[in-house]
Amino acid sequence: MIKALIFGATGYTGLELIRILASHPHVVVAGGSSRQWAGQMAGESLPFLRGHRDFVLCTSEELSRNPQADVAFLALPHGDSASLVRPLLETGLKVIDLSADCRLNDAELYAQWYGPHKDPEILGRAVYGLPEIHRERIRNADLVGNPGCYPTSVILGVAPLLGRADVDTGSLVVDSKSGISGAGRGAKLTTSFCESGESFMPYGVLGHRHVPEMEQELTLLHGQPVRVRFTPHLIPCSRGMVSTIYLRLTRKVAVQALRETYENRYREEPFVTVLPHGSFPSTAHVRGSNRCHISIEVDERTGWVIVMSALDNLVKGASGEAVQNMNLMMGLDETAGLDGLPMYP
Amino acid sequence: MIKALIFGATGYTGLELIRILASHPHVVVAGGSSRQWAGQMAGESLPFLRGHRDFVLCTSEELSRNPQADVAFLALPHGDSASLVRPLLETGLKVIDLSADCRLNDAELYAQWYGPHKDPEILGRAVYGLPEIHRERIRNADLVGNPGCYPTSVILGVAPLLGRADVDTGSLVVDSKSGISGAGRGAKLTTSFCESGESFMPYGVLGHRHVPEMEQELTLLHGQPVRVRFTPHLIPCSRGMVSTIYLRLTRKVAVQALRETYENRYREEPFVTVLPHGSFPSTAHVRGSNRCHISIEVDERTGWVIVMSALDNLVKGASGEAVQNMNLMMGLDETAGLDGLPMYP
Amino acid sequence: MIKALIFGATGYTGLELIRILASHPHVVVAGGSSRQWAGQMAGESLPFLRGHRDFVLCTSEELSRNPQADVAFLALPHGDSASLVRPLLETGLKVIDLSADCRLNDAELYAQWYGPHKDPEILGRAVYGLPEIHRERIRNADLVGNPGCYPTSVILGVAPLLGRADVDTGSLVVDSKSGISGAGRGAKLTTSFCESGESFMPYGVLGHRHVPEMEQELTLLHGQPVRVRFTPHLIPCSRGMVSTIYLRLTRKVAVQALRETYENRYREEPFVTVLPHGSFPSTAHVRGSNRCHISIEVDERTGWVIVMSALDNLVKGASGEAVQNMNLMMGLDETAGLDGLPMYP
Amino acid sequence: MIKALIFGATGYTGLELIRILASHPHVVVAGGSSRQWAGQMAGESLPFLRGHRDFVLCTSEELSRNPQADVAFLALPHGDSASLVRPLLETGLKVIDLSADCRLNDAELYAQWYGPHKDPEILGRAVYGLPEIHRERIRNADLVGNPGCYPTSVILGVAPLLGRADVDTGSLVVDSKSGISGAGRGAKLTTSFCESGESFMPYGVLGHRHVPEMEQELTLLHGQPVRVRFTPHLIPCSRGMVSTIYLRLTRKVAVQALRETYENRYREEPFVTVLPHGSFPSTAHVRGSNRCHISIEVDERTGWVIVMSALDNLVKGASGEAVQNMNLMMGLDETAGLDGLPMYP
Repeated sequence: MIKALIFGATGYTGLELIRILASHPHVVVAGGSSRQWAGQMAGESLPFLRGHRDFVLCTSEELSRNPQADVAFLALPHGDSASLVRPLLETGLKVIDLSADCRLNDAELYAQWYGPHKDPEILGRAVYGLPEIHRERIRNADLVGNPGCYPTSVILGVAPLLGRADVDTGSLVVDSKSGISGAGRGAKLTTSFCESGESFMPYGVLGHRHVPEMEQELTLLHGQPVRVRFTPHLIPCSRGMVSTIYLRLTRKVAVQALRETYENRYREEPFVTVLPHGSFPSTAHVRGSNRCHISIEVDERTGWVIVMSALDNLVKGASGEAVQNMNLMMGLDETAGLDGLPMYP
Repeated sequence: MIKALIFGATGYTGLELIRILASHPHVVVAGGSSRQWAGQMAGESLPFLRGHRDFVLCTSEELSRNPQADVAFLALPHGDSASLVRPLLETGLKVIDLSADCRLNDAELYAQWYGPHKDPEILGRAVYGLPEIHRERIRNADLVGNPGCYPTSVILGVAPLLGRADVDTGSLVVDSKSGISGAGRGAKLTTSFCESGESFMPYGVLGHRHVPEMEQELTLLHGQPVRVRFTPHLIPCSRGMVSTIYLRLTRKVAVQALRETYENRYREEPFVTVLPHGSFPSTAHVRGSNRCHISIEVDERTGWVIVMSALDNLVKGASGEAVQNMNLMMGLDETAGLDGLPMYP
Repeated sequence: MIKALIFGATGYTGLELIRILASHPHVVVAGGSSRQWAGQMAGESLPFLRGHRDFVLCTSEELSRNPQADVAFLALPHGDSASLVRPLLETGLKVIDLSADCRLNDAELYAQWYGPHKDPEILGRAVYGLPEIHRERIRNADLVGNPGCYPTSVILGVAPLLGRADVDTGSLVVDSKSGISGAGRGAKLTTSFCESGESFMPYGVLGHRHVPEMEQELTLLHGQPVRVRFTPHLIPCSRGMVSTIYLRLTRKVAVQALRETYENRYREEPFVTVLPHGSFPSTAHVRGSNRCHISIEVDERTGWVIVMSALDNLVKGASGEAVQNMNLMMGLDETAGLDGLPMYP
Repeated sequence: MIKALIFGATGYTGLELIRILASHPHVVVAGGSSRQWAGQMAGESLPFLRGHRDFVLCTSEELSRNPQADVAFLALPHGDSASLVRPLLETGLKVIDLSADCRLNDAELYAQWYGPHKDPEILGRAVYGLPEIHRERIRNADLVGNPGCYPTSVILGVAPLLGRADVDTGSLVVDSKSGISGAGRGAKLTTSFCESGESFMPYGVLGHRHVPEMEQELTLLHGQPVRVRFTPHLIPCSRGMVSTIYLRLTRKVAVQALRETYENRYREEPFVTVLPHGSFPSTAHVRGSNRCHISIEVDERTGWVIVMSALDNLVKGASGEAVQNMNLMMGLDETAGLDGLPMYP
C-alpha cells in the first residue's frame, strides 16, 4: 500500500482527502496534521471517523520530520505550504499542494495577489495539476500545484473553445457560484448558518485570487493573452460550484457544432461529462463525485455562446482532483478511489 | 378603508399580498380567491393567519361577480388574468395584474413567448408598473402590469447607465439567481426540498419569458434596441434574487463617476439603495422588504462595469411592488404599508 | 414617543428588537450599544438598516451614562446585564432584561447553574416576564426578567394541565428543538453553515440552563415541585422552536376535554393559538410573529397526553415577548407593534 | 458477480441502492423498474448516473417476468410489494422487501394500520431484517422484511436496556426526527422547499405506521408487551434521523453501568457505535454511511435514562441495511460495499 500524509487533515479539503482515500484500493493514510487537535486520535475530534481506520494527529512540524510515507498532500493555507515543499521533496516524497503556493509560474504575479512567495524556486518545479490539460507532465512530476476550485470549473468550461476562430476571447465573462465549504472550516460570522443560510451574495468582486490562475492557464492554451471578467458568489449550500461562462461569437455558429467540439475534446476523459441539449448542470448531480458536468448553448438572438459547468468544489475542485493527480504521479489507474457515485439526494 | 380583492390568494404572491396588506394603514383585504381552497376561511388552509383578520376564500368567478371593492390584485397565472381584467375595470375597480398579461406593449411579442393573448386590447391600456421608471403614468392609471421579478432587478440595475456614451449596451450580459419561491407554490419534483436544497443550477436557459419584458423597457429607456444575454439560476433558499450585470466600457471610466450616476438617479427613490464601495448586495439584507440594493464596480483590468442588484422576489419583485403601485394609483403615500424592516436573520 | 435603548443591539435579539420597534407606533430606538461596532452608525455594520431610521452605536458604558430614554432593553450575555440593572433603574428607566440575570427568584439556584450572581438584590425586585402568567405584576413592574425561549414554549404548553388531577406531573418529559439563532451571533464552528446545515443533533443534554427557570415557574403554578426531563436539539434553520411535551394521565381522559382546557385558558390571550384536532404546530407558521401555536393530543393506546408548542425563538421566545412586556409596563396596548403577520414562506 | 434487480429504482431508496451497489465488489445492478421513466436508460432521467454504469428502466411487470438475477430489492410502496414477493421467490431469487409488507408477523395487525394484506402467507416466511437482532435467521432467509427507518433507530437504541430490571419499560417515550427524504420522492406541497425548508414540525402524531413494528420487535425482545409513545417530526434537511428515547429508572443507576451495557451489546457490531460520555450523535456524522451512533445519559435529578440514536434514514434506515441483509443472505462479508466513510460536510 502507498502511504500518504495529509497536512491540514481537519480542514474541509483534508477531511475530504481522508474520506476519498478511505475507499482507495492502493493507498492508506499514514498520518495527518492539525494545529487545533494535534495529539489526539483523529476520531476524537471527528466523530464521523469512529468505527473506521483511525490515526494520530500531530503538528505539521512533527509530521514532516523523517516521514515514513510515499506522498504528501498539503491541505494548508497558502504561505504555510511553501516552506514544507522542499523538505518533503528532499526526503523522497511526492508532493501535491492544494494551496495556491505551487500554481502560478511567475513569482511576481504570485506576489501581486498573495504577497511575497516563501520559496519561489519551487514554482519552476511544480506542474499545474489539471489532468485534462497537463496529464503527461503530471505523470512525470514529483510536485503538483493542485488547481483552485473556480479555475478547474472555468478552464474545463472554456478550453475547448480556445482553438476556434469564431469565438471572441476578449469578451469572456465568468459568473461563478460556490457552496460555503469553499470558504474553509474556520469559524467566521459571514459563514455562520444564520448569516449565510437563506442568503445569496457576490463576494470578493474584482479581487478574487483565483483570477491569475485562470488567466495563466487560458493564456497558455490560447497562445495569446486571455483576460477574465470574474464574479464569485456564495450559495447557501455546503458543496458545489457552478460557473456560467459567456463569450461573443464572431459569426453565426450552430450549437451542435460547438457541442461536438466539447464532446470530441472530452470523449476519453473519465471525469468530464458533456450534457445533451436542454439538460443543464446541477451541483446536486455531482455532489461527492469527481465529475464535472458541462452544457453548451448558443443564444442565436444575440450571437453569444453560454457554457455552464458544475462540480463539487471539495472533490473535482480540490481533494478528488488531488487524488487523481496522485494516481497519475504514482502510476496507478487514474480513476482509482474516484469512481463512486455522487450522493443523491 | 380601501377594499382590496386578491385573485389567487393562496399562491406565494397572493400570500405575500395578504401579509403586506395586513400592516397597511389604509387598506383591508375584502376577499380572496383560491381554486384549491374555495369555500374555506383563509385561516383554515393557512394556519399562519390564525389569530389575525380572516376572510372567506371563493372562486375567481364568484369574486369577480359584483365586487364590493376598490382595487383588485390579480396574482394568477398568465392567461387566467387577461380575461378578468376588463370585467373588473368595467365595475370601476383599479386593477394591478401580477401576471405577464399586461406587461408587454405588443400582442405579437406576447404571442411569441406566451401564446395568443386572450384580450390584446388591454395591452394598450396598461402601464408597466415600475414606479422608478413610470411613476407619473402609474398615478393616473387604472390598469397596471406589475413587472416580473427578474426585470425589476435588471432594469433598476441597468437604467442609470443607459444615458451614458461610455457604455456599450451591445455587450449586456445578465446572470441572475432566484430563490425557489419564484417557481410558484404548485408541488413539483424539481422544487421539492430534497431535489432543490443543497443544489444550484441554471434553468430556462435562453428561453426565460422575462427577457422580452426587460428588452422592451431597456429599449424604451435607451431609445434604441437593447438585447440581453440572460441566464437564470435557482438558489436553494425561499426568497431573494441577485442579478449580476456586465457591460463593456468604451473608454476608461472611474468607478466613482459611475456610482455617482446611480446615487443621483436614485437619491429620491424610497426603495432603492446604492451601496458604498466594497459593500455588495445580499438577499439576506432585503428579505421581506420592498427595497432593492445595488452595487457598482469597475474592472479596470478589463474595462468592464459590473452592477449587482438584490431584492426579495416576492416583495420588490412582486407583491411589494404591487402595493407600491396601488399606493400611487390610489393617491396614498407611496411607502404606506411598505416601510417595515427586513427580517434578519 | 417613548424612547428605548438597546444594550447589545447587534446580537440576534438586539437586531430583532430593532426590527420590531421600527414598526411600533409609540416607541423609537434612541440608541444602542455594540462591543464590536461601537462608534459606527448602525447602518454601516447592518446593511439591512440602510434607508431606514439609523442611530449611533456606542459602548454599554456610554449608553448607560446619563441616558435620555424611558426604557432599556438588555440584550446582553448573562453576567453583563446584572451590573447594569440598578444604575439604569436609578436613573428612572424601566428595564427589561433578556438575559438570565433577572429570571430566577433564588440567588443560590442562579449560582448553581450560572455562577455567582453579580447583584443578587435585583432578583427580588424583578418580575418574570411571561405575560400569560404574570400580566398584572408586569404592569406594575419597573424590572422584568424576560423568559428564555425554551421556558416560554414549555410553560405555555404545560400550564393549563397543572390544575388537573388526572395528569401525573411526575412524568413530565420535554423534548425541544431550536433554530440556530438561539445559539447567538458569535462565530462558532458548531454553528457554521457547513457544520450545522443538513444536520440535526441534541446538545447541552442534562445541563441546559433553561431547566431551573422552567421548574421554578411550573412549581409556582402547580403549588408543588415539578421536575422536567429536558433535551434540547439544534434544527438546521435560523428561527423557530418546537417543544414536544409528554405527560402520563392517571385515568382515561377525552382529548376534547383537554383541548377545551387549553381553549378556555387561552381564549383571551392575544398571542396564543390553540390549533384544532389534527393540525400540528409548525415553526413556519409563526416565523417573525409573536404568536405561539399549541396542539394537544391524547394517545389512547398508552394513556399519555402529548402537547406540542411552536414559536419563533427570537420573537415570542425573546424580543417580541420583551416588547409585549414593555407595552404592559408602559401602559400601552399589549399588542402594539406586534400584530404583523408571520413571513410565509 | 451477483445480479441484483431494483424494483422502484427511481425513488429515494431505489436511488440509494444504485449508489451503494455501484461500489459493491460482488454485486451488479442488472435492471431496475420505474413507473414514470420505464423505457429510458436510467442515466437519462438521473443525470448523476452519467459516466457510470447505466441500465435500462422498465416496468415492474417486465422486470419480474423471467428475471435473470439472483436477488431482488423491492423499493416500492407497501401494497405494491406484496404481490411481487411470491412470484420472485418462485423463480429462485432471494427477496429483500423495503416496504412494510413483510415486516409484521401478524396479518391482522397489518390490516389495522395499512389495510388488508395482499398476500398474508408471506408474513410467516419473512424474517425481520435487523441484523443486530436477527442475524442468524437472516443468513438462512430467502425473504427479508427490511425494517423501517424509525424502528431501526429506536430498536437499536432501546434493545440493550430491555434485559435490565432497573428500567421501567412502561414509561417508554420516543421523540423522533427525520430528514425530508423519508417522505419519499413524489412531488407534494408539504415537502416542497419553500414549505419545508426553514421549518420544523411534528407530523403523523399518534398514527405513524412504524409504531406496530417497533412494538412487535421490542415486545419479542422483552418477552412481555412494550408500548411506545411515539412522535415523529420533519427536519429541514434531506437525510438523517435522530431518536431521543426516555425511560424511567426504578432505582438509582450509574450512567457508566448503562453505557457498559451498550458497549458490551454492540462491541462486535460493525455498524453501531456507542459514543463516549458528553458526545452526542449528529446526523452529520453518519450521512451517507450505514452506521448508527448512540449516546446514553442518566438524568440523576429525575431518575430517567435518555438514549439518543442517529442514523442516515436512507442508508442504515433503508438501503444500506438492505444491502447488509443481502450480504448475509448471500454468504458475503456483512460489510461489503458498506464501509465507505460518511460525507462530511
